Amino acid sequence: MALIVQKYGGTSVGTVERIQEVAKKVIKHQQAGNDLIIVVSAMSGETNRLVALANELNDHPAGRELDVLLSTGEQVTIALLCMALQQQGVNASSFTGSQVRILTDDTHNKARIMEIDADNIRSALTKGHVVVVAGFQGCDQYGNITTLGRGGSDTTAVALAAALNADECQIYTDVDGVYTTDPRVVPEARRLDQITYEEMLEMASLGAKVLQIRSVEFARNHNVPLRVLSSFKEGGGTLISAEDPTMTMMEKAVISGIAFSRDEAKLTMLGVPDHPGIATQILGPIAKQNIEVDMIIQNTGHDSTTDFTFTVHRNDYQAALKILQQTADTLGAREVICDDKIVKVSVVGIGMRSHAGIANTMFETLANENINICMISTSEIKISVVVDEKYLELAVRSLHSAFNLEHE
Amino acid sequence: MALIVQKYGGTSVGTVERIQEVAKKVIKHQQAGNDLIIVVSAMSGETNRLVALANELNDHPAGRELDVLLSTGEQVTIALLCMALQQQGVNASSFTGSQVRILTDDTHNKARIMEIDADNIRSALTKGHVVVVAGFQGCDQYGNITTLGRGGSDTTAVALAAALNADECQIYTDVDGVYTTDPRVVPEARRLDQITYEEMLEMASLGAKVLQIRSVEFARNHNVPLRVLSSFKEGGGTLISAEDPTMTMMEKAVISGIAFSRDEAKLTMLGVPDHPGIATQILGPIAKQNIEVDMIIQNTGHDSTTDFTFTVHRNDYQAALKILQQTADTLGAREVICDDKIVKVSVVGIGMRSHAGIANTMFETLANENINICMISTSEIKISVVVDEKYLELAVRSLHSAFNLEHE
Repeated sequence: MALIVQKYGGTSVGTVERIQEVAKKVIKHQQAGNDLIIVVSAMSGETNRLVALANELNDHPAGRELDVLLSTGEQVTIALLCMALQQQGVNASSFTGSQVRILTDDTHNKARIMEIDADNIRSALTKGHVVVVAGFQGCDQYGNITTLGRGGSDTTAVALAAALNADECQIYTDVDGVYTTDPRVVPEARRLDQITYEEMLEMASLGAKVLQIRSVEFARNHNVPLRVLSSFKEGGGTLISAEDPTMTMMEKAVISGIAFSRDEAKLTMLGVPDHPGIATQILGPIAKQNIEVDMIIQNTGHDSTTDFTFTVHRNDYQAALKILQQTADTLGAREVICDDKIVKVSVVGIGMRSHAGIANTMFETLANENINICMISTSEIKISVVVDEKYLELAVRSLHSAFNLEHE
Repeated sequence: MALIVQKYGGTSVGTVERIQEVAKKVIKHQQAGNDLIIVVSAMSGETNRLVALANELNDHPAGRELDVLLSTGEQVTIALLCMALQQQGVNASSFTGSQVRILTDDTHNKARIMEIDADNIRSALTKGHVVVVAGFQGCDQYGNITTLGRGGSDTTAVALAAALNADECQIYTDVDGVYTTDPRVVPEARRLDQITYEEMLEMASLGAKVLQIRSVEFARNHNVPLRVLSSFKEGGGTLISAEDPTMTMMEKAVISGIAFSRDEAKLTMLGVPDHPGIATQILGPIAKQNIEVDMIIQNTGHDSTTDFTFTVHRNDYQAALKILQQTADTLGAREVICDDKIVKVSVVGIGMRSHAGIANTMFETLANENINICMISTSEIKISVVVDEKYLELAVRSLHSAFNLEHE
């Protein structure tokens, strides 16, 4: 008998009918002999409705009260799902975050889980109940309700799986798994049966937004096998787990997928006097405004000056540019140039660690298509390039084909 | 500095605008130098919406899950009211029933309050915060969420006032106080400034549904001064409190009001063999079906038989009649007669204890109007008669006038 944690998002429980569908799915897994913990989100639309009410009453609702308000969304769903299960004759018990108890720090609206006391859940499981837990929420040491921030239900599921040493944590979404790339760009994109945490992290952070990065990190840190599945379609989904030696040594493809992001903009300071501490002088003022910087490249210069380039989210482009121009004046740099019509394309794969020539294949493929590379950045398991946004589809398709990703 | 508990019902917090109005009212009371605990219900319509969802998923939703579901209604309101107060620069903290903590027994959907641990509230009051508490809810000793049943928010308010030894418990409703009778029947009906718990209980149970009977009983048992006021209209409302000696001894009116109920039906078993135990033989089967019996009259009989009459709520009329006919067969009674076109009219007043002739004035007044009395029942502070329903308005108006209730 396995212990499985399943998480159903807002769309999967968006109506009474969908809650009944979830109940059926849960019962099937129970009849297969599993113990089940079900984590649910608020019914789709509910969180937005509550936020709108809050905003009507307060320009800047206090975090504590916002959490009291928003946590009701999941509380409604746990009760309704239990009712649906009970209607089918299945014993079920609901638990709010406080009731579990999921202890968090006191950072309202984006609290972090400190500890899970799963005694209440264990006792319900022992009685043969399906346990239904409100995602996205916990309480601090004083009993104040906290929320984990949007997407926090995934984190709840993974944290419960870790605390209870579950055999698997299944995340049900509206996609049926992780693909070699976005099927809207490459129709031949293939669903991956298996992928490592590290690959998933690279894929997720680059735009394949199937899972919250945070929940994948959590799963990796606690070695919880994570599976992404569709709520609406049958299938095995994609298993995300630690690197299995057999996986990399055997026929495992070198590259798992092609990720990309359209949300980038690039800024360059040319002719910066090259002396120690220049990077922090340039990026410090950016960081102070809470602007996240993605790729950073500093070219070796000449004439004792250097060129410094970085990318930010397009939403932050204007703000970053303004700051950078001030910094350039202060530092006596020659010029600031920038471009928000760029995209980032990455090949991701744990296999590239043991295979030479991946970078070369990538650059060659792009060169054959006459795609000019503006920036390059590499990590252990990915190579990213920045190219003009008009080349996005061409770059992704040609790389997908070059690494033979359409075939298993 | 006084400590005041205020309760606002669902209509008073039914929209964002009304919540803002409540916030203004609360701030006015705070600026007058009071400590404030505000108890709120779910926004009007919300509880019905949640019940409808539950019923779509389960024919008989389990009490535990129904409470998890319904308690979200008040939880939304406490957060929103705090936000409205904070927007005006007033410090405020919300508390669910579990957070207070309002400990109840484990009778889901109609739990009874066992104990209130008000430490969290006290500490928030000490910090100068307005405390906002979710009405209608608590938790059992295992942390399961419970609800007190519909109208339970009044009980929450009174219980908090008792636990914290508040100076007054103010119940804001859509009427501006307790009247000598229903103003829709007697336009001259007058708002009472003051009334005793006992009188209010008689008035409430007879149809003047301003307050939940249960909260009045609770207030009486703990001697909490209770005031009924309008959410929408200025005014002092009606204070409900213990009998004040000066109140009955001075010019206090003998009668406080005329109550009535249209919801009654009367059943009579004629020619019942008159022997000990006959009452329980007749009423036992009725009670077994959870039918509540109101007035009971047994006339002295002749021929060693007796006539036995009682009234029930009209909704229970058909069921009660069926049972009674079976019992009549068993007992060998002569006949069952019944009438569901009757009403009950009562004069209520603590003053009647020290004044003779009240009953006579009542009967004389009705006789002068040619109103035939079908049943009479008396208690310490009320006299009730059952009459044909067509006489209701005439009876109430003539009694209101006979006891001079239109004048203070």
